[in-house]
Amino acid sequence: MKSIQKVILIGSGNVATQLGLALAEKGFDILQIYSKTHAHANELAKKLNSSPTNQINKIRPDADIYIISVSDNAILEVAEALPHENIFIVHTSGSTPMDIFKNKWEKYGVLYPLQTLSKSVKCDFSNIPLCLEASDRKSLERIIESGKKISRRVYHIDSEQREYLHIAAVFASNFTNHMYAIANDILEKKDIPFDILHLLLEETLRKAKSNNPAKVQTGPAIRGDNRIIDKHTEKLSSLPAYQKIYNFISQSIQNTKKLKP
Amino acid sequence: MKSIQKVILIGSGNVATQLGLALAEKGFDILQIYSKTHAHANELAKKLNSSPTNQINKIRPDADIYIISVSDNAILEVAEALPHENIFIVHTSGSTPMDIFKNKWEKYGVLYPLQTLSKSVKCDFSNIPLCLEASDRKSLERIIESGKKISRRVYHIDSEQREYLHIAAVFASNFTNHMYAIANDILEKKDIPFDILHLLLEETLRKAKSNNPAKVQTGPAIRGDNRIIDKHTEKLSSLPAYQKIYNFISQSIQNTKKLKP
Repeated sequence: MKSIQKVILIGSGNVATQLGLALAEKGFDILQIYSKTHAHANELAKKLNSSPTNQINKIRPDADIYIISVSDNAILEVAEALPHENIFIVHTSGSTPMDIFKNKWEKYGVLYPLQTLSKSVKCDFSNIPLCLEASDRKSLERIIESGKKISRRVYHIDSEQREYLHIAAVFASNFTNHMYAIANDILEKKDIPFDILHLLLEETLRKAKSNNPAKVQTGPAIRGDNRIIDKHTEKLSSLPAYQKIYNFISQSIQNTKKLKP
Repeated sequence: MKSIQKVILIGSGNVATQLGLALAEKGFDILQIYSKTHAHANELAKKLNSSPTNQINKIRPDADIYIISVSDNAILEVAEALPHENIFIVHTSGSTPMDIFKNKWEKYGVLYPLQTLSKSVKCDFSNIPLCLEASDRKSLERIIESGKKISRRVYHIDSEQREYLHIAAVFASNFTNHMYAIANDILEKKDIPFDILHLLLEETLRKAKSNNPAKVQTGPAIRGDNRIIDKHTEKLSSLPAYQKIYNFISQSIQNTKKLKP
């Protein structure tokens, strides 16, 4: 099995930047950076000691892997504009199935880093979960081998799993942040600083991480403490949108309890 | 103003234990521990080098403060059974107004540590937010002075604020944990370990702590990405309870966006 050594990055955004930095640091040869905007290709190429291009037909034929890291709806278009066949291409998207590549390519895959990344904040890539998938066993082994060089957390996640992983991340990250935002808004209205909750939120996350979170659920809903629930509902009558969410989620917590006695 | 030095603890549960340990460590004299169960009073008295009693009429008259740390619905009953008048009493409850004491006492207050505490896990009390309230300015100054000896985070929070603080904590901690539980359940069904999300959840909390959480909201709902929302809704059709929450909270995020353009 030929190890991956030579890499071409298609794209120059947040993921391409952080992935490129991690690969370069671990000794991969970043042959070339493509971006349709030359300044962007140039900026990233400088960081990675690589060559920029904004002409897709100038992309070299001799890389071991072509990593397409562009916005979801541009992946296929960019892939189809590549001037070579018989190349190994992967995308880095959490919400795009692998099989968008199946009509034109033989070897393809997905290399999805599960983290919020930004261009400017250098991250410790070794802790970032890498979700890998490939068209065939040999290709999968090749990207797993490469993935392990840049991260300690390598997972084989197929397209179906990746969709549910994305949904789970929406609940645990986006929806959780919305709960933080509501709490912050309620506190602001009463002149209480949000940082009064910081330690509690850290402890909530710590406990959820070291247990099954359903088993460490606390609060009035899981206790069936209707006296407190009624009091909170009444207090929220001046904030009807929050009152509705309060009752909806309290009900959901109590339903979960019924399901798992 | 006479500083608080001599303390009597009424109760021997999680809060009494951790508060007692913190007070003893900072040099307060814990004169006595009361619990209706002698073994419990004895167990905590040993830890604090103090004297146990299970007879409420044996409680000494000479403490500077009487800290009542029992379950919410027992606070008033225990307070009224105390054999002394003209004493300074406080409770440690997040969801009980201070004025339950107003008919019988002159000086009273609340000393509410905002954290999940347990008997057995020794905590670093110096980081725990202490929410303080008192019947009069002088009593407030006395408990603030004492509070500052055991915690770096002392807040003056009145009863009305404390009720909203409790509601905010339900959103940010209990409801957040429910979101973690749903994510964990979805992942379990697809054989994906929950720890794949740990780093993302840490980053979500870190960002919410260093910003206004509403301003760092991410995900399909805030982006108005209906293609992804529809796909997720369809994928959740086999889990209708989660599908309902998904749509409800996505809608709530979009409503918030409309309110704050």
